[in-house]
Formats: sequence, C-alpha cells, structure tokens
Amino acid sequence: MANFEVGEIVRALRSVREEWRDQQKRSRDPGGREFPSRDALVRIVEGLKGALFPMRLGPTDLRHESEDFYVGHTLDAALQELLGQARLELHYNARHAPLPAAEIEAQATDAVRRFTAALPGLRRLLDSDVLAAYQGDPAARSVDEVLLCYPGVLAMIHHRLAHELYQLGLPLLARIVAELAHAQTGIDIHPGARIGASFFIDHGTGVVIGETAVIGRHVRVYQAVTLGAKRFPTGSDGQLKKGLARHPVVEDDVVIYAGATILGRVTLGKGATIGGNVWITEDVAPGASVTQASLQKAPRPAP
Amino acid sequence: MANFEVGEIVRALRSVREEWRDQQKRSRDPGGREFPSRDALVRIVEGLKGALFPMRLGPTDLRHESEDFYVGHTLDAALQELLGQARLELHYNARHAPLPAAEIEAQATDAVRRFTAALPGLRRLLDSDVLAAYQGDPAARSVDEVLLCYPGVLAMIHHRLAHELYQLGLPLLARIVAELAHAQTGIDIHPGARIGASFFIDHGTGVVIGETAVIGRHVRVYQAVTLGAKRFPTGSDGQLKKGLARHPVVEDDVVIYAGATILGRVTLGKGATIGGNVWITEDVAPGASVTQASLQKAPRPAP
Amino acid sequence: MANFEVGEIVRALRSVREEWRDQQKRSRDPGGREFPSRDALVRIVEGLKGALFPMRLGPTDLRHESEDFYVGHTLDAALQELLGQARLELHYNARHAPLPAAEIEAQATDAVRRFTAALPGLRRLLDSDVLAAYQGDPAARSVDEVLLCYPGVLAMIHHRLAHELYQLGLPLLARIVAELAHAQTGIDIHPGARIGASFFIDHGTGVVIGETAVIGRHVRVYQAVTLGAKRFPTGSDGQLKKGLARHPVVEDDVVIYAGATILGRVTLGKGATIGGNVWITEDVAPGASVTQASLQKAPRPAP
Amino acid sequence: MANFEVGEIVRALRSVREEWRDQQKRSRDPGGREFPSRDALVRIVEGLKGALFPMRLGPTDLRHESEDFYVGHTLDAALQELLGQARLELHYNARHAPLPAAEIEAQATDAVRRFTAALPGLRRLLDSDVLAAYQGDPAARSVDEVLLCYPGVLAMIHHRLAHELYQLGLPLLARIVAELAHAQTGIDIHPGARIGASFFIDHGTGVVIGETAVIGRHVRVYQAVTLGAKRFPTGSDGQLKKGLARHPVVEDDVVIYAGATILGRVTLGKGATIGGNVWITEDVAPGASVTQASLQKAPRPAP
Amino acid sequence: MANFEVGEIVRALRSVREEWRDQQKRSRDPGGREFPSRDALVRIVEGLKGALFPMRLGPTDLRHESEDFYVGHTLDAALQELLGQARLELHYNARHAPLPAAEIEAQATDAVRRFTAALPGLRRLLDSDVLAAYQGDPAARSVDEVLLCYPGVLAMIHHRLAHELYQLGLPLLARIVAELAHAQTGIDIHPGARIGASFFIDHGTGVVIGETAVIGRHVRVYQAVTLGAKRFPTGSDGQLKKGLARHPVVEDDVVIYAGATILGRVTLGKGATIGGNVWITEDVAPGASVTQASLQKAPRPAP
Amino acid sequence: MANFEVGEIVRALRSVREEWRDQQKRSRDPGGREFPSRDALVRIVEGLKGALFPMRLGPTDLRHESEDFYVGHTLDAALQELLGQARLELHYNARHAPLPAAEIEAQATDAVRRFTAALPGLRRLLDSDVLAAYQGDPAARSVDEVLLCYPGVLAMIHHRLAHELYQLGLPLLARIVAELAHAQTGIDIHPGARIGASFFIDHGTGVVIGETAVIGRHVRVYQAVTLGAKRFPTGSDGQLKKGLARHPVVEDDVVIYAGATILGRVTLGKGATIGGNVWITEDVAPGASVTQASLQKAPRPAP
Repeated sequence: MANFEVGEIVRALRSVREEWRDQQKRSRDPGGREFPSRDALVRIVEGLKGALFPMRLGPTDLRHESEDFYVGHTLDAALQELLGQARLELHYNARHAPLPAAEIEAQATDAVRRFTAALPGLRRLLDSDVLAAYQGDPAARSVDEVLLCYPGVLAMIHHRLAHELYQLGLPLLARIVAELAHAQTGIDIHPGARIGASFFIDHGTGVVIGETAVIGRHVRVYQAVTLGAKRFPTGSDGQLKKGLARHPVVEDDVVIYAGATILGRVTLGKGATIGGNVWITEDVAPGASVTQASLQKAPRPAP
Repeated sequence: MANFEVGEIVRALRSVREEWRDQQKRSRDPGGREFPSRDALVRIVEGLKGALFPMRLGPTDLRHESEDFYVGHTLDAALQELLGQARLELHYNARHAPLPAAEIEAQATDAVRRFTAALPGLRRLLDSDVLAAYQGDPAARSVDEVLLCYPGVLAMIHHRLAHELYQLGLPLLARIVAELAHAQTGIDIHPGARIGASFFIDHGTGVVIGETAVIGRHVRVYQAVTLGAKRFPTGSDGQLKKGLARHPVVEDDVVIYAGATILGRVTLGKGATIGGNVWITEDVAPGASVTQASLQKAPRPAP
Repeated sequence: MANFEVGEIVRALRSVREEWRDQQKRSRDPGGREFPSRDALVRIVEGLKGALFPMRLGPTDLRHESEDFYVGHTLDAALQELLGQARLELHYNARHAPLPAAEIEAQATDAVRRFTAALPGLRRLLDSDVLAAYQGDPAARSVDEVLLCYPGVLAMIHHRLAHELYQLGLPLLARIVAELAHAQTGIDIHPGARIGASFFIDHGTGVVIGETAVIGRHVRVYQAVTLGAKRFPTGSDGQLKKGLARHPVVEDDVVIYAGATILGRVTLGKGATIGGNVWITEDVAPGASVTQASLQKAPRPAP
Repeated sequence: MANFEVGEIVRALRSVREEWRDQQKRSRDPGGREFPSRDALVRIVEGLKGALFPMRLGPTDLRHESEDFYVGHTLDAALQELLGQARLELHYNARHAPLPAAEIEAQATDAVRRFTAALPGLRRLLDSDVLAAYQGDPAARSVDEVLLCYPGVLAMIHHRLAHELYQLGLPLLARIVAELAHAQTGIDIHPGARIGASFFIDHGTGVVIGETAVIGRHVRVYQAVTLGAKRFPTGSDGQLKKGLARHPVVEDDVVIYAGATILGRVTLGKGATIGGNVWITEDVAPGASVTQASLQKAPRPAP
Repeated sequence: MANFEVGEIVRALRSVREEWRDQQKRSRDPGGREFPSRDALVRIVEGLKGALFPMRLGPTDLRHESEDFYVGHTLDAALQELLGQARLELHYNARHAPLPAAEIEAQATDAVRRFTAALPGLRRLLDSDVLAAYQGDPAARSVDEVLLCYPGVLAMIHHRLAHELYQLGLPLLARIVAELAHAQTGIDIHPGARIGASFFIDHGTGVVIGETAVIGRHVRVYQAVTLGAKRFPTGSDGQLKKGLARHPVVEDDVVIYAGATILGRVTLGKGATIGGNVWITEDVAPGASVTQASLQKAPRPAP
Repeated sequence: MANFEVGEIVRALRSVREEWRDQQKRSRDPGGREFPSRDALVRIVEGLKGALFPMRLGPTDLRHESEDFYVGHTLDAALQELLGQARLELHYNARHAPLPAAEIEAQATDAVRRFTAALPGLRRLLDSDVLAAYQGDPAARSVDEVLLCYPGVLAMIHHRLAHELYQLGLPLLARIVAELAHAQTGIDIHPGARIGASFFIDHGTGVVIGETAVIGRHVRVYQAVTLGAKRFPTGSDGQLKKGLARHPVVEDDVVIYAGATILGRVTLGKGATIGGNVWITEDVAPGASVTQASLQKAPRPAP
C-alpha cells in the first residue's frame, strides 16, 4: 500500500490552524470544542416537530391512547438537549467577557423554560399556516397533505421555532435551525423576521426574507421572492450599521408572485398584489396591484 | 437539573390539538396514525432506483451474475412496502366515505400491479432522458456520469415514478415522491405534468413545472424556468375551479433557457427557442426564437 | 398476500437493460460495478472537512490535546477511501483504451498524494473565504457562525476540494463532490471554475458558475447569480466544441447582486459593481457600476 | 471476478426446501413468513426493561420529571409490538385448526391486556430478587450494582416476563424471551418453571431449571446447578408423556451450591442446604444439609 | 478539561508493539492489516443462515413469490464477502512462504465454489438435526420453534458451515465461525469434529467437542458434556504431536447425559447410553449403559 | 386498535417504584439518572482494545503509516468517556457522604491518568497471555488466531483492564467490564483477582475465579474450573465479614484441568497439576499431581 506522508500533512495543517488562531487572537484554551452542534439541532427539531404534531410527524405507530406519553417523553428529551446547546451558545458568547457558570446556567434554563412555554402558541400559529396553504393552493387535497409535503410549511415550522430562539437571545441556535430548513427547501428566512399568522409560501425555492422584515397576517408568497435590503448604511466611522430596520414591511392580505424583488424599508399596503418578477423599492398603496404590465403590458403571473 | 413543567405543556399542547381537531371536524378515531410515511417512501424510491439501474444505483458490490436476484429481491421489498402505503392513502381518502376493507385492498393491489407492469417502460423513458442529457451538455463525459451526478436526471426518475402513481389514483404518494426530489434538487415538478421522452433539465435549481403542463419529446430546460398558471379561474360560486388545463403545452424539440417564465395554457410550438429570463404569456410559433433581444437587444443566453 | 408477478418484471427489466447495453456498445463484462460511489464520497468529504477544521467540524468531544491524532486518523481513512475511488474513476476512464493495472495504481496514488499535499493550502484559502463572509455580512456574529451555518462556505469547501480533484485528472469524483454541495445549498459551481481567495456567496440558492469561469480575489456574489456561457460554438463538423473558454472573467473586488446574469467570455473589471437582476453580455469597465437603474432608474439592490 | 453458479445453487436449495415442506406436509401457502421474530422480542424486552426500571435501565438522560412519560411511551410501543407477535404465534398455532381472524385478534388482545396488568406485580417480585442478591453476596456494593451487573438478575427479569407469557398461552414467545437470557448469561430457565420471590442465582453459567420445577421464596442457587428430570416416562403407546410434573420442588430458604444436580420430582425441604457437585435423586428433609462430605468428607463449598 | 498525556502513552504503546513484533520476527510490512475480520464473518453467517432457511431466518416480510430472489441475492453477497475473507486467510497463511497473487486467487475462488456447492447438502443435514431435536425433546412444540429457539441448533448451523470451511483449507475462518456460536450458546465444537446427521444437543451450555472427535448418526448430547483428549502425546523431540486422533468416537444412536466427560480416542459403541457426570476413558460396548449407578447406585439422569 | 389502559399501568408502576424508593430510603433527588452505563463501557472497552492491538482489533483498513494516529485518537475518545463514567461512579459512591464536585473531579481525573499510564504494561502482560495460549494449545496455528478467536484471551483483556479499574477505586466500572466478558465467554473472573503473566484459559465456559484469588505466572486452566470460597466467615455481629482472603492461591506453572473445584484460602504449590473434576479444599504440595485417579484410578484428563 502507498504511503501518503500523513504525518507531514498533519504538521502542516496544525501550522495553518495556528496561524488562524493567532490571527483570530484565540487563547489556546486547553479545553475542547465548546460550540453548538448542527447534528444536535437536527435531533432537537425532529423531536419538537414530533411533539407539536404527534399523529402526523411522530412515529408511524403512535396511537391516541399514548399520544401524551409520546409528546411528554419526546419533548423532555428535546428540551434537555436544547438546554445543553443553549449553554454552549451562551458560553461561546461570553468568550470575550466571561460569565460565572451559574449565570450561564440560569440564563440557559430561563431561555429554555420560556421557549417551552411558547410551544402551544407556536402550534396554533402553525395550524393557521397549514390552513392558509390548504386554502391558497387549488391542488391541495387535505390539510394533512399540506403538513406532510409542502416545503413552505416545513420552512415555517423551522422559522417559528428559530424566531423564538432568536428572541430569547440564542441567535446562533436560531440560525442553525433556519439553515436546516434552507438546505431542505431552498427557502432562506432569517430568524429575526417577524411573520404573522396564516403565512403561505408556495414552491418556495429561492425565497429570501431578511432579518428586519415584518409580515402581517394572511400573506402569500411564491418562489424566488426576495424581501431584501436596498443598501447597507454606513456610520461616520465607515462601518456598516447594524440592527437598522432595512427590510420591507408587508401588511395583511398581500400576495407576492414569483420572482418579485422588494428592497429596503418600504411598505406593501394591506391587500396589495405584487406581480411576478417585479422590482420594487418604493411603498405600494393598500389594495394596489403592481405588475410588469404597468411597465410592459405583461399579464399577472400566478405560477 | 432544571424542571421545565413538561406536564403542563403536554396538557396545553393537547388542548391546542383538540381545538384543531374540532375545527377540522375530526372524529376522535380511537385508532392510530393511518397516513403515508415520508420515510417509507424514501426507502421505496431507493429500492426502485436500484431495481431500475442495478449496476449504477444498486449496491457497489453487485455482479452481473446476480443482477436479477438483486433486482427481484429489491423490487419485491419495495412493492410490498408500496402496497402498504397505497392502502394507507386509499384508507385516508375514504375517511369521509368509508369503503369496505376488501375494496381498499383490491384497489391497492391493483394499483401496485399496474405500477409494477409500467416499470420496464419507465426504464426505457429514463434511458432516453439520460441520453438527452449526455448529448445536450458538452461537459458530460459519459452516460454513467449523467446518471450518477445530474440533478435533472434524479428529478426525472422521481417524476416518472410519481406520475405513474398519480395516474393510478395515488396522488398523495406521488406528491411525496416529487417533494423528495424537490428537496434534493430544487426542481419542483408536479406529478400530474405529462413529459415526453428525452427530457433534459440542466442545473435545475428553481425549475417549477405545473400540474397540467404537457411537454413533448426532446425538450431542454435550464435552471429557474417556470411553466406556471397565469391565473386561477373562479366559478360562479367564487370558488377556484379545479382540474382545468392551466399550464403551458411545450411541443417537441423546444429549448427554454434559464429563468424564463411561461404562464398559462399557451403553446410553445415545435422547435421554438425561448431565451433566458423571458416572460411569455402567449403562444409561440413553431421554430420561433423569442429572446430579450427582441425587446432589449441582449444575445441568446446559454448558461 | 398478493402476487405481483415479480419474476416477469425482472425478465422485462433485464431485457430493457440489454437493449441499453447493446445500444451503448457495452461489452458484457463479467465483472461487477466498477464505478465511483456517491456514498463513498459523502464519507470522504465528511472526513476531509473534519481534518481541515477539527475543532469546528470534527467530533463534538474533541480536545486540543488530541487534535492531531484525530486529524491524522481521519485524514488517513479519507485518503484510503479516496484512493479506492480514484482507482475506480481511472479504471472507468480507461474502458475504451485499457491501461495496465500498475499504471492505474500509479496514477491513482500520485493523484491522492498531490491532493494530500494541497490540503494545507486549501485550508488557508478557506480561512480567507470565512473571513470574507464574516466581513461582508453585517448579520454575521463570529467566524465560527459563518463556518458552521453559511451555505456559501459549505459550497466553497466542496468547491475547493472538487477543483483540486478536477485538476488532478479526476473530473468525475470532482463532479460528485460538487453535486453534493449543490444538493445541500442550491449553489452549483462547476469544479473547473477557478476562484481566488476571499470569495463570498450570500444566501446562494440558484447560483450557477460555469466550468471556465475565472474569479479573482475578494469577490462577493448573491443568490441566483449566473456566470454562464452565451452560446455553445460548434466546429466545422457541427459538433459542439469542448474546452473553449466560454464563461466570464471576474476580476478582484467585484460585487454581483442577486439574480444578475453574466454570459459569455466577458470581463467584469476590477472593483466593478453589478446590480440585481441585471443581464450582461459585454465587458464591464473596472470600477463601473452597472444596474437596472441605468435602464429603469431602479436603485442598487443589496438583498 | 469469479462466478459461483449462484443460479444453480438457488435451484438446488429450493429443491431441498420443497422436500422438507413435503415431508412436513406444509400447504404451499401463498403468503409470507408468519412467525414470531427474535429481533422483535429483543426490542420488546428492551422496552419492558426500561419501563420496569426507568432510572436504571432506561435512557441515561432520563429525569424524574419525565419518568412517567418515558414509561408510558416505551410501554405503549412495546405492547403494540408484543400484540403483533402474539397474533403471529396464535395464527401459527392455529395452522392445523384455523381460527377466525377476529378470534385470534381477541385472544391476542386479551393476552396482552393481562400481561400488561401483571407488570406492577412483576416489578415488585423483581425488587425482591434484587434485594436477595444484594443480601446474599458479600461482594455486592449496592442494589443498583446488582440490577445493572448481575447475570442472575438479568435472567430473572427475562424469566418473570417469559413465565407470564407462558401462562397466557404464548409459550413460543416465552421461549424466545428465555433463550435471549440464556444466550446472554448461560442460565437456562424454562418459562414454565414457577419461582417464588427473592430468588438469587450467583455467577449462573450452566444453571438449568426445567419446565415443571417449583421453587419457593428466598432460595439461592449457584453456577452449574441443574434442576432436571430423572427420566422421561413413556405411555402405553411408547410415546413420551407430556406435561407430567417431572422436575424438583424446592421449598423456601433452600441453598444449592455450584454444580449440584437435582433430578426428578423430589422435594428439597424448607431450609435445606445442598452442597457443591452433589447428585440428588431423592427427597431431602427440611433443614437437612447434604454435602459430598457425607460421602467423601469434603467441606461445604461456597464458591 | 484534563490532559492525559496521550502523546506519551501513544509512544509507549508503540514501543511495546515493536518489542512484540521483533520478538515475533515480523517484517515491518508497510501494508495494512491483512487478516480476516470477525465482523465480516458475522455478516457472512447471517447471510448464509437466511439463504439456507429463508422463510424462518430471512427477513420477516419475505413472501414465497420472491423467495428465490432473496436467496440468490443474499447468497451472492455472502459469497463475495467470503471470497474476500478467504483471500485474507490464504494470504496470511502464506506469510512465511509467499505465493503468487494469482495462486491465492485461484485457491480462494476454488474454495468458495466448493463451499457453495456443498450448501444444499448442508441444508439437508441441518433439517435432520432440527427433526432430531423436535423428536428428542418432549417440550418442543414444532420444528419451527426448534429452528428459531434452540441453541443446539444454532451451534450446529455454525458447525456444519465451519466444518466445510475447515475441510476446504480455511481453518481460521472456520474457527471464527465456531467461536461466534460458542459466544452465543456456550457450546464449543471444534470445526474439525466430524458429526453425522440428526445430531441433537439439549441446553448445551458447557459442551466441548474436540478436533478429532467422530460422531455418528442420531446421537444426543446434554449440557456440559466433554468429548476431550486424555493427554497430549509428545514426540521424541519433546514437542506436542499435532493431528493425532485423540478424541472419542461416538457411534450411531448414543445418548450422553449432562456433565459426562469422555476422554481420549475411545469408542462409545452403537446405542450406548452414558449417564450424567460419568467420567469415561475406556471403550464402552455397543448398547451398554454406563451410569454413576454402577459406582454409586444413582439413577440415570435425564435433565 | 385495542387500548391497553397504559395510563393506569403507568400509575401502578410509579407506585411500586415509590415503595421501593421509600424502602431504600432514597431522597427523591430531583436530578436524573447518575449511574454508569453499560453501553458506555462497551464503547470504552472497544476503543481500548483497538488502542492496545491496533492492527488486529482496530479497523480493518488500518495501515502502519497511521497506526499512531489511530491509537491516539481512539485512546483519547475512550479516556474521555471513561472519565465521565468514573465521575458517575464516584458521585454515586458519595451518595451517603457527599463530596465537593471538585474533589470528585480530581479523583476521577487522577484515576484515569493512572489507568492510562498502566496501559503499556497491560499490553505487555496480554502479549504474554497470548503467547501462553499459543504455546499451550496444540491446535493454535498462530498468535494472531489466538488473539482474534480465543475466548480466554478476550476474558483476560477484560480482566486486566477491570483489575486496573478495581485497584484505582472504581469497582463498579470494573465489575461491568468483567460482566461484559462473562456474557461473551461464560468466564467469570472477579476484577479483584490478581493474575500473573502468561495465564491461559482454554475453552473457558463455566470458569469462576473469586475476588481474593492470587494466581502466579504460567498458569493454565480449563473450562468449568472454580477457584472459590469455602464458606463465608461471619463476625461476632453475625454479619458476613468482607475483604478476607477467602479464595485459593495458585503458584507459578500450575495446570488445572476441566471441572476442578478449588475452594478456600488453600495454596496450590508451584508446578502442581490438578486433574479434571477434582474437588480440593486443602493445600497441594509443589510439583504434586492430584487427580481423581488417586481416588478412583481415572487417568489425567486433558480435554
């Protein structure tokens, strides 16, 4: 068998790692990897999905008699693992300003408790999303098909969980949860986005929704829609300003067809309809219908 | 360790589930979850892919001597599991108008028998798709590379299986099979779409093909192409009409470049070429070439 | 239980396979499947990712004390398996012009040795990509978040490994590695593309970068950007010409916003900015800013 | 690669199977394998062990708060699977005298219901066995060590479950459960044996306890002890008689040291002590001490 | 986290390994581990068991229609893996007298071919063993129970496979197969032992049968029986002589009760009965009954 | 589907658990299960075996070039997990007399450090055991066969690891390691037993070696040998006395044939030979040969 001089490469790789760590001003902490784990969050989300929708996303042999046992057991395991991940994120966040372990523990426990308490409300919101999809798509045969098959619903399950984590001060866990849905569905919703009940994304591939976007109730969005930022303002120091509201506000009952791009802190008024592939950087009045047709006489798209 | 009041949340979640079930007018059936399973369909499709292409998608240590044993064994297991899933869908469909168990059994068995009989024809169609990809992409080095690597080919394997299920009265199983490919490839083909031999999708991310689309032979399509509906007609009762032919007809030998959007029951005539990012809502004559160039003098795109 | 006439279908499937093999002029080699395996490459890339970033993408319980042991062991296993896959590709490539086994062995070993030697350099390039993402996205909280969560970074890890394999004469392995990232991220980068340090793709879904594209340093690209070919030139024999430089050259410090389409062997000059959804088929001067605004008065998009 | 004429061997194996089936007068039922599964019983026993001793044999991360959820969920899954296995055994038993499916269903359900109801009593008996081991072995450090480590305790968990199944008319399931322990521990207890509370087997390898053995309370037994039959009586037809009481009766507080062999329907009286390697085929009086010493002046063994 | 000076221990362990390799006069072959694998043989035996008894030891969902496909596919995979293991043993055996690779390949292929051809005969022998157990144990309810549950039958499946391998010049593979059964059942049969049809071992724990033992047809043996060597003859050089017939010959229809020890090349004549715990080092006449009773007036044991 | 009143049984099981916990005077600690895990020790021993014998018990594709990387990585993972288990045992041991967490941490770390340092010495001892088996069994073909196949060697690997843990104050972990071997081999060696180099157990089923046994160098033992206690002395309080030397001392070069029983603190002098099935409760002089022959004129057994 061939030799590959593995020993030499191991040394070279170590040397590159050390360069990087020096450059990043890392203390050579003697400890191990203390960083949240994507695999752990896969398990956690899987468990939470089962606990939220036991008879549809739980085990195939579940029976009504034992539904609550399943929910309780699955929830408990998911929350324990979430607590561990929350600790890791808080500990990581405190790397430049160390906190006492007890403080981290208290914060992590508090976050998971509040997250737990939010779950029944999340389930109710998700029910509204499922209904919205069922009512909005003539091809949908049942609410169960929607829950099991629609990528837009999967993306919203992840988003509503991720948004909760984001609000509880766990933005990294939130981001991982969001990216898991992004990888599965091609729908990229930042965990910071605020989205009202009965939201429906059809097809979904290529949808991007930014961090400060605000979306009302009964909004419908098709594939490849972007709710993005127009530009990144810089402060007097030339640095990008963070946290500014820079993504659109979408009011209730708006429909946005495929490929439309809405940029900046503009408002799409209640009940407006945005046509496919349209490019918008200014407010749209309530009830208005903006289509390429206004520019190019193309009909309203509804893919 | 911390307590999370899991018992309380379990009760609250049950209460939300009951609200939903009341709202959905569900009988509290004492039984279990009787609904098709995504995981089961993952296994079924995996088995069918191996049975269709044993030396390329079957086990790596397969030898010609035993090819048929592998095919027969794998097929049998996949068909058995498919039969079980077909039962579940038919049983679910009959939830509002119960059928005798024997009737469901007969329908399920008949559907799986006819599905089985269709497999050799499907393999022949898929061979034509593989050849089309090989001939249509200058970068393709061999038909085997195409079969193993091209997302468009994976999407077509799923679609041709899903379309068969759709025609056999199993639209939910069909949908799950289609969504498995969608998640993997970003290509979203409704199982109802009728697609002729030698179809090639290159790159593929963002392609959407609607339920009533009809596509001829030797058609080529690039990423982000939409074959969608222009609008949803409503009946006199204000409800969306279902089942109307509302997506494009694409005749033989048409090429559609990336990002083009074709909406409504329009016909792209034999041999037409549709340029990138073009927006079309009217018929295109056979042999015609429609590009942005006609509007904007941009050259023909061929990404 | 029902019978499905499996035996009959097995015979019919064999008959279709034989048609195909005759048509492909395959010798009925008595041997087995000798073709690279997607599953093997999943394991190989997983191992290489761990060896390159042990404390972030390696096992969660890794400690600094044993970092090198993990790296060496993981690397060794990945390289052994890569050697096996390289043999299979070289053997497959030689199917029309058989090579002595020793020659294949020598080529495979040499390729894996050179691949190994390139790894430290790849890690350094990837560090530059991570930094570019961190600096280019105001939402990024740490370089670790970027490495763990950003699909664009995942795509670049795959690409830089795949490009190395492509250059070492293993284009099929390279293609599989690239498609694994494509399936995960919706980002489709051909392994042949040459990409400089500090490259950042944000969001990423729908990005397509062609085989002969050349990209400089510090380039930033958003979702749904295409760097494609304008047309496929044909030779005097009517066949597509292969290997011609047919994709764009993107110089240092260029930014390309979402949905922009750049086609053909054009050059985007150093520091140019390309607006969202813009369609470009001609050179852009260094420092220039091309936006829809020049045509349609839309502001610069920055989703 | 070599060919092994697999096809030919497959035919030859079929021919041997058909010989066997003819000889066994099997109808060639068109159905499948309808026979209990060892793997299923492994999972069932694993689940029951967790449900009986959640904090010791359940998952390592279980917390008191969620103990009941775990117990309920695990129990439910185990009972469902047990119900399926019970159906298979009853169906198999009825192969010579077919029963209506509903009758089998009723019997299976009834058996599992009664099995379930017996579990709390079993747990109490097993607690007495654990205590007996802890008190009987000077090396035992805690009841928890006993429960986790002692093969004799594992054998009794299996036995008490198996004996229940045996009494409920499921002797084949009972046998499989018993053999699972036999394979693990070398302790072979027939599911028919009736064993009182506080039973302790130390070391255990080679212990054999027959079907009609009756054992009182607070009995202690060491490795390689046999409680067997002396001979098999035959009836007037020359056939072995079944179901006769043919194994020993062991009264309360008896101790039997390693290697002792007790054969036939003899009674070891309350409080008797049987020395190592002793061979006994007659009754032993209460309180008596039988050792090799009575024959050979060897001291009492206590390995 | 604590450091354990792993690097130092790794060096120390290497140094001990080098001592050992020097002492064993090992060339420091640059290659890898080329030695059969226990895990591989677990898979091989599992496959062979399924191929021999498809409806009982194969997959639970197997149906008659597809039995042969399962048998063929499973057999093929098992034989391929066996071929690989045979190569490893032959290569290892040739470590002191290297053979050309082609010679090893030819021997390995030939051995596996002959092994394959022997399988139908093995199945017939095993059927006789199953019948013998069913007829010999009054507690046995069906031949299927015997096949599924009896450790003695499991041991014989392994033994008959192992004996075939032993005769084909693969004693190491044979030994591993035998030890797998030993670990499961406590029955230790050397692969060299020659055992006739209709052999039945009851209970089995502690049975030891030596390499040169010869056992006739319709023999029955109980737990803890030893068929061993009396002493190891040494040659004029003081070394143990190998390969001499040193274990008992047991003629047809003999029964040996639990714990009996038979040592040396003695013959138990046709139809003899050997009582429990008896110690025998001389021939026993056909039809004779040897029991402790002849010494101690104890009755015939039949545990 | 049937209901099994799972809720009711859950309550009944809880009630039995509470009885037990009351009886055991357990505080209802709000925490979780803090007790060593058998599964964890399976992984730990698996890792240690690989680290001790990398080219034989490590991964099948290991190469010399990377042996140390494998050893280091595997060792590190095993030691980390062992540290966790050590913490659990020490924490459990302190349940009646709580220790500060830092004290437990220090003890656990110290124990694992010392365990680690002992590994090279253990490997050397195990090499001597392997050689002893190879030299003592005429059937052994190579030291590698011995290491891979002999249950006695497996038992000694476990014992030497377990004895080290026992001496380091982790008797529960030691016990679990010992029982894992017991279940696999039927050989039951208490971790407290002190055993010299070059120890060989042949066949092994049924061997029992007690806690205070002391065994010299070059000792050989066959199946079903017991080195046990004669009786358990009780103190003036009527309680069993613990820790007294109560098992045999076996000096160098002793051979003990199958089934021999040695009881009490007797000494078998250097070079003594103990015949099969012999029962010994008094000292045996150096060089003496004790067989049944002295009583019954039976020859020396050597099974």
